Amino acid sequence: MINPDRLLRNLHDLRGFGRAGNGVVRRCLSPVDMESRHWLVCRMQDAGLDARIDGIANVIGRSANPGKALLLGSHSDTQPTGGWLDGALGVIYGVEVAQALQENPATRHLTIDVASWADEESHYLGLMGSRSFCDELAESEIDAAHNSDGHSLRAALAEYGLEQRPRLHLEPDRYLGYIEAHIEQGPWLELEQQRIGVVTSIVGMRDLELSFSGQQNHAGTTPMHLRRDAAMALFDFVQILNRAFSEIRGDNSVWTIGRVALTPNAPSIVPGLAECNLQFRDPEQARVEQMQQCVFTLIEEFNRNNEVHATIRIRDESARAVAMHDSLQAALAAAAEKHAPGNWRHMPSGAAHDAQVLAMHMPAGMLFIPSIGGISHDFTEDSREEDIVLGCQVLAEAVIQLLDGA
Amino acid sequence: MINPDRLLRNLHDLRGFGRAGNGVVRRCLSPVDMESRHWLVCRMQDAGLDARIDGIANVIGRSANPGKALLLGSHSDTQPTGGWLDGALGVIYGVEVAQALQENPATRHLTIDVASWADEESHYLGLMGSRSFCDELAESEIDAAHNSDGHSLRAALAEYGLEQRPRLHLEPDRYLGYIEAHIEQGPWLELEQQRIGVVTSIVGMRDLELSFSGQQNHAGTTPMHLRRDAAMALFDFVQILNRAFSEIRGDNSVWTIGRVALTPNAPSIVPGLAECNLQFRDPEQARVEQMQQCVFTLIEEFNRNNEVHATIRIRDESARAVAMHDSLQAALAAAAEKHAPGNWRHMPSGAAHDAQVLAMHMPAGMLFIPSIGGISHDFTEDSREEDIVLGCQVLAEAVIQLLDGA
Repeated sequence: MINPDRLLRNLHDLRGFGRAGNGVVRRCLSPVDMESRHWLVCRMQDAGLDARIDGIANVIGRSANPGKALLLGSHSDTQPTGGWLDGALGVIYGVEVAQALQENPATRHLTIDVASWADEESHYLGLMGSRSFCDELAESEIDAAHNSDGHSLRAALAEYGLEQRPRLHLEPDRYLGYIEAHIEQGPWLELEQQRIGVVTSIVGMRDLELSFSGQQNHAGTTPMHLRRDAAMALFDFVQILNRAFSEIRGDNSVWTIGRVALTPNAPSIVPGLAECNLQFRDPEQARVEQMQQCVFTLIEEFNRNNEVHATIRIRDESARAVAMHDSLQAALAAAAEKHAPGNWRHMPSGAAHDAQVLAMHMPAGMLFIPSIGGISHDFTEDSREEDIVLGCQVLAEAVIQLLDGA
Repeated sequence: MINPDRLLRNLHDLRGFGRAGNGVVRRCLSPVDMESRHWLVCRMQDAGLDARIDGIANVIGRSANPGKALLLGSHSDTQPTGGWLDGALGVIYGVEVAQALQENPATRHLTIDVASWADEESHYLGLMGSRSFCDELAESEIDAAHNSDGHSLRAALAEYGLEQRPRLHLEPDRYLGYIEAHIEQGPWLELEQQRIGVVTSIVGMRDLELSFSGQQNHAGTTPMHLRRDAAMALFDFVQILNRAFSEIRGDNSVWTIGRVALTPNAPSIVPGLAECNLQFRDPEQARVEQMQQCVFTLIEEFNRNNEVHATIRIRDESARAVAMHDSLQAALAAAAEKHAPGNWRHMPSGAAHDAQVLAMHMPAGMLFIPSIGGISHDFTEDSREEDIVLGCQVLAEAVIQLLDGA
């Protein structure tokens, strides 16, 4: 049904754009990322699609066939130390399914569009391309966006001549649904020796920046009771937070303090400023909101009882918890059972995906293949070739069932 | 007895080497630090001393007079964002006292040596110059030393032609004692409206690097119970430590976590490595040892109960708690009472000083003047001119009493 050699060759060719050892460095709107987008346009054209790069750097290929369409895709940009599969897998799956079905007289009539959404990895703006496509990205947000080097998004778009191009938007009633394939990025499929994950829901995520302001001072001459130690305040708050979150958490809640910055961060100086990012996720949006409310309440209480003053900034609230659509789950499950009988499972996605955005506007589904060692966002990220091929077969099967049954 | 104009002029002239706003940047063995050392040699020569820069960058001026000598000094290197007085005060006090007493027929016979010890502020090696002078600095330690830019101490010494010069060492039986004047670097004198502090003891200090090794992972896809989160381990350990230290602490114990480094320090990645510096001080050396033993015991327990593995490295144990000598305290107290009756106090030093090293080899004493706002190691560090002048008068008075009474 699909062409495994072509699938793997295209994945390895895409890997060549920004290759770094086993991994890839292909931040959105870098020169090598733009080269890969032009290459993707050609691959979509090979699949018979009318393909272009739009005004926000999305690569979108449209089928000329009539009737309801399925939209397949993911993202081809990477993290600073990216793995070669990550989002690239779902984009090349889309290309392969479109091309394979177009080559076969029995399926040539099926209407399949393919997309590579810009900047899923948040070099400028998280989930940027899919939000633009779904009319959820304001011009003002584009105006304000910079990458971590201070380079503005507007300047980057202008550099590649994209600023005059229209941003393509969702056409009402065109789509039966959106399906995104992705590596799992977690340990479960491998641990349970299963080969396909049919995603039930994607967790909602919130990223808060907490900032504690005290008084910088000499670590030898400032008595403990006169200190306003910003770092100790942060450490204390984390304990309060862990206790509170443990009480309201669900089975799949996670929270992380992944970044800490002390000022001046010197061994013999009492820190005057301590900042951190607190990120939490849950498959139920209501619990995400509850966790955020909890943090605000705790910080308010903390400020009543402390001489160090804490503040909160919401850094990212774009990823809302959503359920995958029943009809797409059912089609993916049936296809998985056909090609890997007994070797697949239903599972939630702990990571954010463009499907989260699309799911608010059409039925959406996701398919996972196993990650070796559960590793992702790392040069060593990998998946077995037979799993890569199987995942694409399952996707093609589900697409045919959905479109032919429609 | 002293010349206030010359004292202030010399202090301001020294401030000119590396001036940055109100403060000074004069890291040990930087070009501007070496210029200031050549300038100091001239000032010591003005005071009638046989002065030179030795093989470790100490500037030492010796009196040709016979009889027991007093050694006066401090350090003229600064922190990365240094105040203009800090150690410079004690060095220029030494020069002024030597010169003023040499100019006066009644005191010309008194034997006064002056020193500016290299690298008290630990750009390469903490208390480097005073330890070299007291034969506490091994060649192997010099071989291994680098600054934070990775520049080796040997290379820095060679750059300025110091590598062939002998290191000057303490001459047995020459000295009656060592007196170091310094700004307080704390809030107490100002808070209590007093003008002179006679130091009773200098705290001992230990700086430990704690390192927590877990497993880096995706902050969305890694369930809480499967995480080996290095940052959370560090936060938990700080609470255990705070409880334990609260039980064994003395009235003047202090501890600080001034530096934290997470790897990779990204909001959506569970940290695989968390490092921090734990620094603690106490006026009693036995308690410093007890606190260190406590940390080692807690880390051992922690490792038995955790999947994150913690290790300790002793980063700095050079500053031992020492008492100032009774005879020098008495002379400084009498001089303070004469020039500022009722407006002085005895007090411990919470900061480390070269006097800590010298005190193991001869009677040592220290004199503090008030720091405005208790601020030091900051460009805004300052003291009132009348306090600067008074401190030098008190020092000169005590020196005369000690040497004439000897």
